[in-house]
Amino acid sequence: MSAGPGTPTRHAAGAGSIVAAVEERLTGFFETRRTLVEPLGPVFVDAARALEDFVIRGGKRTRPSFAWTGWLGAGRSPEDPEADAVLTACSALELVQACALVHDDIIDSSRTRRGFPTVHVDFEERHRNLRWAGDSGHYGTSVAILIGDLALAWADDMTRDAGLPADAAARFAPVWAAMRTEVLGGQLLDIHGESAGDETVAAALRINRYKTAAYTIERPLHMGAALAGADPQLIAAYREFGTDIGIAFQLRDDLLGVFGDPAITGKPSGDDLREGKRTVLIAEALQRADIIDPDAATLIRTSLGTDITPARVSELRAVLTELGAVDAVEQRITRLTEQALTALDASTTTPDAKRRLRSMALAATARAY
Amino acid sequence: MSAGPGTPTRHAAGAGSIVAAVEERLTGFFETRRTLVEPLGPVFVDAARALEDFVIRGGKRTRPSFAWTGWLGAGRSPEDPEADAVLTACSALELVQACALVHDDIIDSSRTRRGFPTVHVDFEERHRNLRWAGDSGHYGTSVAILIGDLALAWADDMTRDAGLPADAAARFAPVWAAMRTEVLGGQLLDIHGESAGDETVAAALRINRYKTAAYTIERPLHMGAALAGADPQLIAAYREFGTDIGIAFQLRDDLLGVFGDPAITGKPSGDDLREGKRTVLIAEALQRADIIDPDAATLIRTSLGTDITPARVSELRAVLTELGAVDAVEQRITRLTEQALTALDASTTTPDAKRRLRSMALAATARAY
Repeated sequence: MSAGPGTPTRHAAGAGSIVAAVEERLTGFFETRRTLVEPLGPVFVDAARALEDFVIRGGKRTRPSFAWTGWLGAGRSPEDPEADAVLTACSALELVQACALVHDDIIDSSRTRRGFPTVHVDFEERHRNLRWAGDSGHYGTSVAILIGDLALAWADDMTRDAGLPADAAARFAPVWAAMRTEVLGGQLLDIHGESAGDETVAAALRINRYKTAAYTIERPLHMGAALAGADPQLIAAYREFGTDIGIAFQLRDDLLGVFGDPAITGKPSGDDLREGKRTVLIAEALQRADIIDPDAATLIRTSLGTDITPARVSELRAVLTELGAVDAVEQRITRLTEQALTALDASTTTPDAKRRLRSMALAATARAY
Repeated sequence: MSAGPGTPTRHAAGAGSIVAAVEERLTGFFETRRTLVEPLGPVFVDAARALEDFVIRGGKRTRPSFAWTGWLGAGRSPEDPEADAVLTACSALELVQACALVHDDIIDSSRTRRGFPTVHVDFEERHRNLRWAGDSGHYGTSVAILIGDLALAWADDMTRDAGLPADAAARFAPVWAAMRTEVLGGQLLDIHGESAGDETVAAALRINRYKTAAYTIERPLHMGAALAGADPQLIAAYREFGTDIGIAFQLRDDLLGVFGDPAITGKPSGDDLREGKRTVLIAEALQRADIIDPDAATLIRTSLGTDITPARVSELRAVLTELGAVDAVEQRITRLTEQALTALDASTTTPDAKRRLRSMALAATARAY
């Protein structure tokens, strides 16, 4: 699971301050959990600390930023009496994300994230170093399952404790519910598709829709709008913008996963090919290759998910380009971005929020390799 | 993780009807999720169905029964205008329990529960039968992690949608938070203690306190009291009663796990010994054996967690009894039960609820082998 598109601190006034504000809220929330955690003793304190470290050190606070911008864009202001509660509720999205990442790293057998061992690997190593009984890997997985659960439960606690007025809380609840159900459903479709070998463009797009777009942009914006009591037209415009930009962002991420500069992506070149990710890019390529170039189709199918050499990565890049899959994905990104910006421009979003969302959209989808 | 003490349908008037009422609420809640689940397609519909089947077919609805009885015992009535919302909020405890069981079955590598394959085994078998790509076991675990997450998220959704008045919802939130944090912490202490080989009675009692007592009885009663707006004295009495009976219940369960009749417990005789559970019973035995009978200590340590024969089970039973560990645990159960009933009797709980809680307490802790 991707950490999400970058918050374009250079372009969006206040983006830096929202990141700091979210982190301050998260730190404050962890402070409130100590009275619940400490009575259970040092072992649980350590585990809660591992979760806190994970949440505090990580990420661009993409989802809270979209939610907060969605709230502002519906005509609210940081001086609004509800602003404080809204910012806390938006920040809780980072705890949902912590659960998603910790559990996804188990599912993907990922060993590192953001330059640190993943949570399950961290506890696996503690087990091994202390020469405890039993299987270190299973212990690490078990602890990480529980730490992810804790993050999910705490996400809810944080929104309940935010101090939202009853009417705002009532409007918030169904969006919060949809967001969590959709991201879990999207992850499920993803692992199912990988195992069942569903190679269609439609399947890959559906996973993008729920695992990335709804979760990362559409629902956070919707959440901000719901908290603000926005009218249905603005909510519809946000959702259209968020879905399109969210899918476009994932398509860009897919291209970066194959063609990206390791210095920019932070991942080894061609890593997505070695992981065997079933992206729209791959689906587009296979769809074309099955018709016009069966040898290329075989090359892709036998290489994906294997430990391929740099030379094979180069060869696959050339094949994906020659098949027209790269162009097709670029065209999708362009079309989705244009649609999204049209919906945004036509909406009643405040001019400030329009500027900020436009710049976030372009940063999330821009060619960067 | 145990399913919880039995609801004594023979003794407690209305216990049968609460079980049916909880199941009706759960079924109704799953109905409301369909509009969220169906847009993601048949794969997610299947997974949500697996969760629904798991929740609907299972269990004695112990936690909702305690919560509901706690609410009634604070002077409320089933005719109260808030009764409907309270019953729904109490029923949501079954979804927390579904998450706990599904994830615990992964952690314990359990293959069956309630006569059915566990969720991770169910999806492992689907994967294998369809001859999909990748490791079937890892696929099953991955799907079960997500299904458990879904249960935890849906537990929250169910309480938010219950229709609680704002003041009741505000009183409910911190108890709901404590309950979830404590059960996750208790599970963490459990797997840590098993790996780290913590053999002390204190460690085993602490796990009982949080993993079983707080989660199963203390906090559900507290939740009912909080929803009712009960005074601090009644809340304190409930919590004292719930903690003591909850620990006593787990101690009884530990004895049954070694001495229980398979026809009653539904588990092979001596199963807890084969699983290597670090119970208070074992801790009491080891504490004694280390002083008075080193050979017995070695026998226990080398047998626990291994695939021992029925003859070795009999031998261990005799050793645990001769060491006085069984008597010590029986005495703890008696003392805790007496303390609990004294607290209950002295409380302002309604006479009806006192009768029902007394009978639930005795059913949960009675010698049954």
